[in-house]
Amino acid sequence: MTADRHLVPIGREEALRLLGKVPFGRIVFTAQALPAIRPVNHIVDDDCLIIRSHLGAAISAPGQDAAGIVVAYQADHIDPDKGVGWSVVVTGMARPLSVDEDTRRYTHALHPWICQPDDYLIRIVPELITAYWLTDGVVTRP
Amino acid sequence: MTADRHLVPIGREEALRLLGKVPFGRIVFTAQALPAIRPVNHIVDDDCLIIRSHLGAAISAPGQDAAGIVVAYQADHIDPDKGVGWSVVVTGMARPLSVDEDTRRYTHALHPWICQPDDYLIRIVPELITAYWLTDGVVTRP
Repeated sequence: MTADRHLVPIGREEALRLLGKVPFGRIVFTAQALPAIRPVNHIVDDDCLIIRSHLGAAISAPGQDAAGIVVAYQADHIDPDKGVGWSVVVTGMARPLSVDEDTRRYTHALHPWICQPDDYLIRIVPELITAYWLTDGVVTRP
Repeated sequence: MTADRHLVPIGREEALRLLGKVPFGRIVFTAQALPAIRPVNHIVDDDCLIIRSHLGAAISAPGQDAAGIVVAYQADHIDPDKGVGWSVVVTGMARPLSVDEDTRRYTHALHPWICQPDDYLIRIVPELITAYWLTDGVVTRP
């Protein structure tokens, strides 16, 4: 199964394009000193990821001194039988959108799967993007 | 879209059963003080997860003093359009299998997507399992 399998790196621009083609991914952060991961939906806007979530005390609320936290964000599209597809991991600072930003269109575009009273919009600014095609030799770009 | 959506907790036994029904998930760990995530395939055996991967210096090699590291492991099966499905997150210690364990059947059952010279078998012992159905009201158990 793995004989012809190899990884083909994906550049930053294409990685962001692929992220924009799927509706959800997984945010990875540290909660109470433990690795934590949560699936959320996202949009890509101006080369940044926008999510709408409640990350508890892991990230400051809007309007506070929002230093942000380093997170990873991952999405993939992998055929479970063939094991081919792609994976993108973005590492960067996650900060809540400030109250004076135009958040209406994001709120309109992002429908959280579950309504929580204290969810808010978070922007992840990609610093490092690690992405690859998992291919059996033929790379098919969607 | 979210009006009737809610989370239904999944118990430990059913969460492990669901993990056993999908071939891959994502291991979450800390690498160079940053959150890291990597998709890998897995099997569930004796209520533990077995993966075959190279996690670099993040985890000790077999035969060494393998104290292990705390990781999260996540898999989901979510309909991207309807936003319904399930997500399971396991948190626990990840340790390489010792050289005297019967690793042959795992090696036989687990085909890593990419052959790397230094990948090895890792067991994740679930300490904490957080799992839920993401449902629009009707829970359909696969």
